[in-house]
This record gives sequence, structure tokens and C-alpha cells, in this order.
Amino acid sequence: MAGNTFGQIFKVTTFGESHGPAIGVVIDGVPPGLELTEADIQFELDRRRPGQSKITTQRQETDKVEILSGVFEGKTTGTALAMIIRNQDMRPKDYSNIKNLFRPGHADYTYFMKYGIRDYQGGGRSSGRETACRVAAGAVAKKILADHNIRIVAYTLAVGDIQAKKKDYTVIEKNIVRAPDLEAAKLMIKKIEEARLNCDSIGGVIEAVIHGCPPGLGDPVFDKLNARLAYALMSIGTIRGIEFGTGFAATQMHGSEHNDTFYMDDKRVRTTTNHAGGILGGISNGEDIILRVAVKPPSSIAQKQKTVSMDLKDADIEVKGRHDPCICPRVVPVVESMIALTLVDALMIQKTIGS
Amino acid sequence: MAGNTFGQIFKVTTFGESHGPAIGVVIDGVPPGLELTEADIQFELDRRRPGQSKITTQRQETDKVEILSGVFEGKTTGTALAMIIRNQDMRPKDYSNIKNLFRPGHADYTYFMKYGIRDYQGGGRSSGRETACRVAAGAVAKKILADHNIRIVAYTLAVGDIQAKKKDYTVIEKNIVRAPDLEAAKLMIKKIEEARLNCDSIGGVIEAVIHGCPPGLGDPVFDKLNARLAYALMSIGTIRGIEFGTGFAATQMHGSEHNDTFYMDDKRVRTTTNHAGGILGGISNGEDIILRVAVKPPSSIAQKQKTVSMDLKDADIEVKGRHDPCICPRVVPVVESMIALTLVDALMIQKTIGS
Amino acid sequence: MAGNTFGQIFKVTTFGESHGPAIGVVIDGVPPGLELTEADIQFELDRRRPGQSKITTQRQETDKVEILSGVFEGKTTGTALAMIIRNQDMRPKDYSNIKNLFRPGHADYTYFMKYGIRDYQGGGRSSGRETACRVAAGAVAKKILADHNIRIVAYTLAVGDIQAKKKDYTVIEKNIVRAPDLEAAKLMIKKIEEARLNCDSIGGVIEAVIHGCPPGLGDPVFDKLNARLAYALMSIGTIRGIEFGTGFAATQMHGSEHNDTFYMDDKRVRTTTNHAGGILGGISNGEDIILRVAVKPPSSIAQKQKTVSMDLKDADIEVKGRHDPCICPRVVPVVESMIALTLVDALMIQKTIGS
Amino acid sequence: MAGNTFGQIFKVTTFGESHGPAIGVVIDGVPPGLELTEADIQFELDRRRPGQSKITTQRQETDKVEILSGVFEGKTTGTALAMIIRNQDMRPKDYSNIKNLFRPGHADYTYFMKYGIRDYQGGGRSSGRETACRVAAGAVAKKILADHNIRIVAYTLAVGDIQAKKKDYTVIEKNIVRAPDLEAAKLMIKKIEEARLNCDSIGGVIEAVIHGCPPGLGDPVFDKLNARLAYALMSIGTIRGIEFGTGFAATQMHGSEHNDTFYMDDKRVRTTTNHAGGILGGISNGEDIILRVAVKPPSSIAQKQKTVSMDLKDADIEVKGRHDPCICPRVVPVVESMIALTLVDALMIQKTIGS
Repeated sequence: MAGNTFGQIFKVTTFGESHGPAIGVVIDGVPPGLELTEADIQFELDRRRPGQSKITTQRQETDKVEILSGVFEGKTTGTALAMIIRNQDMRPKDYSNIKNLFRPGHADYTYFMKYGIRDYQGGGRSSGRETACRVAAGAVAKKILADHNIRIVAYTLAVGDIQAKKKDYTVIEKNIVRAPDLEAAKLMIKKIEEARLNCDSIGGVIEAVIHGCPPGLGDPVFDKLNARLAYALMSIGTIRGIEFGTGFAATQMHGSEHNDTFYMDDKRVRTTTNHAGGILGGISNGEDIILRVAVKPPSSIAQKQKTVSMDLKDADIEVKGRHDPCICPRVVPVVESMIALTLVDALMIQKTIGS
Repeated sequence: MAGNTFGQIFKVTTFGESHGPAIGVVIDGVPPGLELTEADIQFELDRRRPGQSKITTQRQETDKVEILSGVFEGKTTGTALAMIIRNQDMRPKDYSNIKNLFRPGHADYTYFMKYGIRDYQGGGRSSGRETACRVAAGAVAKKILADHNIRIVAYTLAVGDIQAKKKDYTVIEKNIVRAPDLEAAKLMIKKIEEARLNCDSIGGVIEAVIHGCPPGLGDPVFDKLNARLAYALMSIGTIRGIEFGTGFAATQMHGSEHNDTFYMDDKRVRTTTNHAGGILGGISNGEDIILRVAVKPPSSIAQKQKTVSMDLKDADIEVKGRHDPCICPRVVPVVESMIALTLVDALMIQKTIGS
Repeated sequence: MAGNTFGQIFKVTTFGESHGPAIGVVIDGVPPGLELTEADIQFELDRRRPGQSKITTQRQETDKVEILSGVFEGKTTGTALAMIIRNQDMRPKDYSNIKNLFRPGHADYTYFMKYGIRDYQGGGRSSGRETACRVAAGAVAKKILADHNIRIVAYTLAVGDIQAKKKDYTVIEKNIVRAPDLEAAKLMIKKIEEARLNCDSIGGVIEAVIHGCPPGLGDPVFDKLNARLAYALMSIGTIRGIEFGTGFAATQMHGSEHNDTFYMDDKRVRTTTNHAGGILGGISNGEDIILRVAVKPPSSIAQKQKTVSMDLKDADIEVKGRHDPCICPRVVPVVESMIALTLVDALMIQKTIGS
Repeated sequence: MAGNTFGQIFKVTTFGESHGPAIGVVIDGVPPGLELTEADIQFELDRRRPGQSKITTQRQETDKVEILSGVFEGKTTGTALAMIIRNQDMRPKDYSNIKNLFRPGHADYTYFMKYGIRDYQGGGRSSGRETACRVAAGAVAKKILADHNIRIVAYTLAVGDIQAKKKDYTVIEKNIVRAPDLEAAKLMIKKIEEARLNCDSIGGVIEAVIHGCPPGLGDPVFDKLNARLAYALMSIGTIRGIEFGTGFAATQMHGSEHNDTFYMDDKRVRTTTNHAGGILGGISNGEDIILRVAVKPPSSIAQKQKTVSMDLKDADIEVKGRHDPCICPRVVPVVESMIALTLVDALMIQKTIGS
């Protein structure tokens, strides 16, 4: 209800503020007997952590995870799995000058209107730092999916108007912008550096593909798999849109063109095209699930901006702190994690249906 | 869990199949003392019902609603409100020839893979007929929102490549495609009729604007207002994408351009632009909430198509029945309803926070 | 949240008022492929229905059930199962004289304080009539349990100070008080008739035994199987207490006496005694689950009583209508149903845990 | 679903094992602006902690709580409140000799059957140590209730056959058994010491009274206030039964005696008696809510007992470790906490109903 829990059977609850003592996550509903170590989690956290390259924020957080419960002798027990990450490189003083100002594009004003409380230190709970907990939980979910031969790949498809032309998975982790095209990656990095030099930021598009999803996942009516995925992904603060398969381009197509016709491929039912993006009537059809999300340009920029103060006066604001000029490279593992959480949940719900 | 319930406090559960005896909805969490009659519900159902114009399916359903519980002497009691609509113009025989074939673009194959059961009569539970129940529940939600001066307006923004150029709310209900621009409406209707004559169908875009939403609605982290809205709207079978505010266009913008700066408008905090679409950090900021959804071309077309049969052989299929060449005009009230359900829930959750 | 839904995966939502047009139930999460007819439901409804014997209320309701959705060609589809029962023998006029008076022992006053609305016709939603929907849902649950060889037996153990001395299951449905002891049944019936002649009512104890429950059902910490059962059973309006196994008598025992020691019975782990009533640490251990509930004397009695009116004045009240002098015989199937709903839910949750 | 979460709006999720690194709790749904310090929590934890007197276990845990999130500058922020307690006096070696044996009366066997995993160190997650987290959450709930003038008092009413004769609240915290009667307390303590000297344990009864509960709390049908309280309290591992008001004694009463008649007390509606225990139709009526729970004798006793081993052979077991001969005094704050959590949730749900 209060928003900090995701999932129906594989339930993830996160907590923690950007500049508080720690952030953390509790997962209830982890299946027992899964081999799990802190190293499994750390690997994914390192992909998201700040300070990983010249085009990310320079806040230094090792994001070292500690498992507090739910694992015994190297295996999950089936009871609540809790993990915490101590904050280290807090600089609350960076925020003292904006204590009474609402940062444009951030949640400062809306949280204050909702709760009547202002945690001015880096946005408190509204900070993107919270997504580290999603990635920690996502690492557990990915291990479960791997046992089902389900693989999620996400990458930066575009930064500003620079679009990846190839989709070469092998290069994604070999360039700091996480694009599937090294040529495009160079241009994207240049674009991001330009933005930073101009005290500005830039948006982009992330695409994700789910390989190996069996037919039958997702539920009818309200809990369609695409609805759950849209919910999961739109909950990432920086995302402003989502589309599946052909997406918005489908609005200009005719049914005769858009319909994916079925055919038998050896003994398997396949579709000749995949405009639907792997989901029919809200339920996976066994084809790759394909989606794209729109990532807005980060709101924290080093320029002076107009705003208002808590005493309701027009004011100027200069946001210090250490920020990302383009958040795409760090959002890629968050996108994967939210997809992983959604799919594990769908797998578990499906278990309740079979005889 | 099984997908037929929406909402956290204002909880809507729908049931019923396209060609079964009845469809219906139970709403738990309706506030007591709300004046409510069947006429209130019928008004909205009539906007969605089949056979309303020459560009919609010719299935004749009056969609007459009966309130079974939750209203006493004209007012809601605070207990479960149940409504049913008897199906009337069922023609299950229309489907006998496709009993063993999976319709392309429909959920026939995926439901069968999920449940091992095939209700071949118009898709059974996967039919769009289910959305009548959403509209019935939405009518109740809209009455509650009206008491809070919140107004939702949705309209067909585009059909294929024909785009509305004006946004004149007064004409929306005066043209059968529900566009806010009478000139564009004519072209859209022409486009739809062409599609039908070609035994084909066409997609479109619906835009919705929420006026009067107070700041503070929505919850942090996973239950952001845009995440809940994306979940609500993507659960409408025909929708393939959603974007808020500037949406996908934001991916090509710089932060300095995209950030909506605050200013004081008399005693109210406003933003100079509204790229965010009325939501910051997942919580409403008091500006209009603006979103667009991508509506795919209907999958039921009167052409012969390739498919496979339940005994896993390649086959041809001809889908009879009575279908919509463009579903936009009938989805407009469904979009409004899903938004209304989401907002009423958010309003009620917000009530738990205030002192 | 608003109270009309029970269960986590097998979710039951009921609706309807005592003297409204109909009562009904929606079950979401019914497994697909279960053979189900209206006759299956009717059998259980007939055990609960009013007017079934001289010691029950004389309100005549056939409680004829209609399945509206979720069943196709005689089998469940896996989607929402809806059933309604039209009310027939409504006599709202019986209540016109108490329109402004709060009946002692009933929910009239508390519902009014909660909702500010008064449905004076037989208590509206607070009527025991609502339990017919639990029995309808319970009939579905029992069919599922039967497939797992789980059997629930409930019976009237005591009426006032008359206690059953034998536990002969074969006679339970052969006496109108549903006692497992024909000798005791005669005395119980006499006790009940005396109460009725005195314009009074009498309480009793119902015991239930669950045979064949496999070890491992129930969840740790808050969702212990006994906690879920207590919740389920205490939600029956007439029940004032519950105990498992040795129950309150355990408070006077020593651990050395109360502990059920384990032993090997052929290849099965058994306990020598069953003080725990089949549940250890909230999880079933494979022994019979045994529980007892305290049933209060019905509040509707044909005597003049003191009360207050809606305009807050002291007053006398005479409750007319047709009432049960002892509710035990009709609560027996309700107790079974609530247990069945709880167990099916626990079975489904357990499915999510296994590999 | 997996059992570690309690509550609907004020949602409490606990985690941690008896001999793991830490236990903890996350509360989602705490209202913003509540003044809260670690000292507020510690006060209640100290009432539950082990080693507090000669009649409790001698395990030495200071149970020092650390708040990780949800509090900013001394006030709750409205976002997830997380607290952890590091375990200190772990002696996993105490359990090495029972690694392969199922302790009678404990959850060792049932957890193993459920999860296929054995955490033999003090029962792992099934340990009563988990209740410290309930008390930490309960401390927050009590602060909220205090602002509504609602006060919960619980006490040991009986130990074995020794019954308190007075109900003097002022002495409860002045005797180590937490009885409301100093004379009875002496006899109870003697009884407990005898049990311990005999390498045995003893049960008891705890009574709780809720003062100041306004009319209107609790929900109809399944979420009756007594149903929610029964669920909450029966989830405490040591509790085997619960009764409200007159409870099981009501089964031998007539309606004319049991009905609490209403009268006007100045301008307030009151009942002459309180057999219902403050709840009518599942909703509070403004009278004191009164309930009693049956506490079983602790299962850990220092005697040799019969059992079976994990390789399914009959065996003897001697349970070492440090245990409570009677758990009543330490369960009193746990009972209060579970009641507090239930009431805060009910209060918040009620907020959604008012206009």
C-alpha cells in the first residue's frame, strides 16, 4: 500500500534513504535450497554502482552487501531473505544550501505535499540510490530464472539521437554506456560527455529482450504479463514510457500486417513475425519478449535554475552533489532486475495452476 | 493473484465470459453514503457498448446493468457492491468452425498453454467484452472523483496516420470516433471504413488528461502513480505502449530543456512547462496528468490467415463473428475507467497518511 | 481491506444483503479442469439452508445457486468463478418496527457507527445469510481437497451443557442437530426446543477434525496454519473462541506431559499423542488437525429487551422475524467450508515452494 | 504469502534467525511526523528480552535496536521504517548434538517437511526469538495508539492452576511473572521454579484488555476485528487458543442472559454487561475489548525425551540450550504488540471510510 513492496509471491520490500545509515531489502517467498552467496549479489550491484566510469556520478559507494537472514550453510531456507548495504560516501552538507528549495524535476515538492516532511539530503527515499536494493533482489531472481533457462538482456539502444545499429550482445559489457554496438557506443559517450561539459544531461532508450520464456506466464485481465512489466519498469523513477513489440508503431499498422500468424516449426508452435513482442492476451507465447523504455534526461544538472522555496517564494537554485549526465548505463541492470522480479513472480504464480 | 482483481483499497473484481450467461463486477471498498443508481452506470456502459455506430462491431448487446448489492435506499452502504450484465446476443455457433484453431493475435493459444482448457466461444474470458465490467466500476469511481473535482478526459488522438490537430473537448462525444477535432474525425472515420471494406483493421492513439488532481497522490518506490497507471492501462488487451508527458520524445532532450521549473502563480506552486506530465517521483504535482496509449489494430479481421490447429498442424483460418475495424472509440471509456479506478485508489491510500 | 475477500491464492469474495435481490460469491484462483456442476454446490447449500428442520429458522429459502462464469462444458476454466443465489422469502416488513432501534447482540449499532448508514432489513450485510456464499465456495474447495484425500468432518459437540459422548461420524447427518452421538442428540434437541419455547436461544460447541492433511502446510511466523484457521473461523459471526488440540486445557499441563513425542510407525513419522492438534510451529505435521469453536447463543430472541434508538433514547425492542434458537446445526457446514477454504489456499501456497 | 508479513496498511515484515547475524523488521505504512527514537523501541524490547529474571531463559541478549531508515531528524518520514537487532549470545554448538534429531513440540520436523532444509540452530526462523521484531514494531504501533487514547494492558492471568484473583494494573510490572495480583504472583513464581527444578515447564493464560477503542473499528465479513485479532495472536507460536468476552463459557448461556443490552449513559451508548467483549458483528462497540489466550508449556525441557532422527529412526533426545520454564511473562509484551499492530491497521483502514 505504502509503496515499498513489489511482487505477489516473490515479495520484495526495500527500505533506506540516500544519506541514511543503510539501505536494504527483504525478499519473502524465496524458494528453499537455492545456492546463494554475497558474491552472487555483489556482481550485479557492481554493474549499477556509482563511480564505475567517467560518465557516471563520482559518488564513491562500494555498495558492499551483507546477507542478514534466509541463508543457512550456503543455501536459501525458504524464509525471509534480508540484505543491507551500508551507505559510506554520504555528503549531506552538499544539500544544506538547498534545504529550503524544491529541485526542479525531482520529487522534493511532491514528497513534501504528500507527507509534510522534507528529507533534503539527496532526496531521501526518493533518491535513485534505492534502486540498488532492486538490483540486489534482482540478482536472486536471475539465479532462479537461470535454473529455468530464462535469460534477460538489456542494453542502451539510444542516447539522445544516437541509435545503436547492431545488436551484438557480446559487446554490451565492454563499453561504458552498455550499448550493443561499439561504433554507436563511441558516439553516445561523446554525446554524454558533451552534456556534462555543458552542465547538462541527456536522455535515451533502453531495450530489453527476454529469451527462453515458456508459454503460459502472466495472468488474465488485470495481471497481464505486459501490465505487470509496465508497472515494474515504470516504477523506475527515470522512465517516462514503455512499449512492447512493435509498440507505438503498431498504431499506424493494419491488422493484416500486425497479426503474427502461427506456424509449426518442427513440433513447436511459432509465429512468423513478433509484432506482439512475445505476449498475447497478457500471457507469454514462447517467442522472445521485447520491450523498450524511454529514459528521461537526469534532473540534477549543474546549471542555475528557477524554482520556488518552502516558504512559497520564487527563487534560484544551484544543485551541487555528484550526478549522472546520462543514467542509461546504470539503469540497464535496474531494468533487468525489475524484469527478473516480475518473471519469477509469474513463474511462481503459474506453479499454483498446474495440477 | 489469478488476475481478476484490481486495486488496493477500492478493489474491483470482474468475472464472466464473452458468451457465458453473464459478466459482472464486485467492488469492495466503496465509501458509504454515495448516491448511486443503475442509470449512473448505464450512461457509461452505453459509451462502450457494441453496435453503437457504423464503425463498431454489430453485436447487439444492450449491456443492461443490475445492481445486486451494496446499495440501500439509493445510497452505497460501504459493503461490497455487485453488478451484473446478462449476455444477450450470443452466437457461439459463429465460433464452431474455429473450435480447433488458434486465432492469430488473440489469446487462444496462450490461454490454452496456460490452463490446458479451450473456451473457443469468442475467446471466453480473454474477450474484450470483459472491459464492460471495468466501465461499470469506472462509473462508480468517476462519481467519487467528481466529488473531489477531478475530471478525466480521453479521446482518440490518432487513427493510423491521421492525427487530431485540435483538442476541443466539446466535440469528443459528437463524433463516432471520439476525436477532439471534427475535421480529423471525418478523415479517421474514412480510414476506418476503408479498413473494414478491405476486411482489415487499423490502430490508433488515445490521449487522456486528468484535470484537478491534487498534489500528493501516488506512492513512492514501486507504487508510483505513473507505475500504477501504466499497470492499469496496459491491462487493456489492445494497448501496446504508454507514455507520460513528453514520453519517448524526452529521450532526445537535455535536462535543461526537459526540467519543468517551478514558479509561484498567485499562492500556488506551478511549473512553467509540463514535460513530466503532472507526476514527479511518482507523485502528482498538481499539474494536469497527461498520458498517451498505443492501440493496436484489432486482431479479428475477415481475411483468411495462416495459423495452427490444436493438434499442431498448419492450417488456414477465417474468423467470422462481428468485429471492430478500429477499437479506439470504444476503448476511450475503458481508458477513462482504468484511470478513474487508479485515482480513487490513490485518493483512498492518501487518506491513510494524513493525520 | 474492506473485508469481503478471503484467501491469498484461492481468493473468495462474497457480496449481498439479507433482504436484497441476491447474494453471491466470486472465486479467483480456482484451478482449471475441475469438474463442477451446480448440483455439487447445491448439496452443501442444502445442509446450511434455513427451514431445514424444526429447530432452525422457518424462513424459506431454496438457496438455488446459479453459476455465472468460470465453468465451460462442465469444467472450471481457471478464470473467475462466479455464483449467485437470488433471495426469495424476503420479508423486509418484519423489520419496519425496529427501523430505528439497535438490536442487542447484533451489529446494528456498530455498522451504523462505522458507516453512518443503517440497512435495517435483517441486518443487511451483517446477516448470517452471508455465510451461504462461504458454503458455496467451500463446496468448490472440498472438491479440490477430495482430490488430495483430505477430509473435513465437523459436528455439534455440545449444546449448552449437553455434551456428545461418542464420536460416531456415521450419525452426524442423521440427526437434525448434527451431533456424532444419537443419545446426546436427543437431549440437545430437547434443550433447543425448550429454549425456543421460552422465547430464548442457547449456545454450543462445534468440533472439527481434518483427516489426511499432509505435513508441510501452513506458513511460518504470521501465516501459521492455526493462525489462518483461527482467522477463518472467528470470522463467522457467531463464534467467540477457538482452541486447537488440547487447547485451554494445555495451560494447566507440564511440558513433559504436553509434548507429543515422535516415533516411527512403519516408515512414517508419527506422534504418540496429539496435544498439538496436528500443527507444530504453525505447520501441519501429518496428524489429524483438531479444533473446537465456541458458538454463542443467537442474539435474536422473541423476548422484549432493553435497547437504545437511533435518536439516542432508551427504548424497548421486540425482534420479530424468523430465527434459530441454536445455530450449531447450520454452522457445522460453515465451519467445514471455512476450513476447506483455508486448506486449499495452504495447498496452493505450498505448490509455490516445491521445486 | 510466505508468512513474514502482517497487516494491510500498517505492514510489518520481519526477518532473521535465532542464531544468524541479526533479526529485524520493516514497517511500511508508518504515518509521517511521528516522533520516534531508538529509546522508544528499546523500552518495549527490554520487557521481552531473555535473561530479565530468574524465571526466564538465561541467554544474554541486550536486544539493542538500530533504526536504519524511515526516521529523519527524530520524526518518521512516512516511508519504510527498518530496524535491526544484532544477535550476540549465539551458541550454535549447544545444538550440534541435536543436528539430526527432531525436537518434540518444536517445528523442526514440520519445517523440514515443508522446505527440505534444516536450520538446527535453535530452530532458525521458527524460534520465538523472532517475536522481538514484533515487539519492536509494536512499540511504534503503541505510540500511534497513545495519540488516539487507546491503551492495551496484558497480564498473566494464570500459571498452571494458579489464577490471579485481583486485576490491579499497577502491580503488573512489579512482579517478574507480570500478574495483576501480587499474592497470586508469588504462587505462580513458585510453580514455575518447581517446574524448572523438575526439568519441566508449565503453561498459563494471558488476558488482555483494550481501553479506549472507539466504536467502528474492524471490517465486516472476513476481516472482523475479532478475526484479525485471533489471527494476530494465534500466530504467536506458543498460543493454543483464544476467546473473546465470555468466550467458551458463552456456549452454556442463553441468549437472554448473554445479550448485552444497550442503554444511554449520559450521551453515550453503552452496554449493561460486556459478554461480547467489546465487539459486535466484528466491529468495536466502544466498550473494553477483552480477550484471553491459552499459552502452552514450553516444549524445550531438560529431560530426555523420545523422538526420531532425520534418517527416520527412533531415538532419544536431550535438548540443551537455555530455555524458559514458563513463557507467560515474556509473551505478555508480545500479546500487547500483536494487538497494537492489529488496532493501528484497523484505525488506518477506518480512515479510508470516513468522508
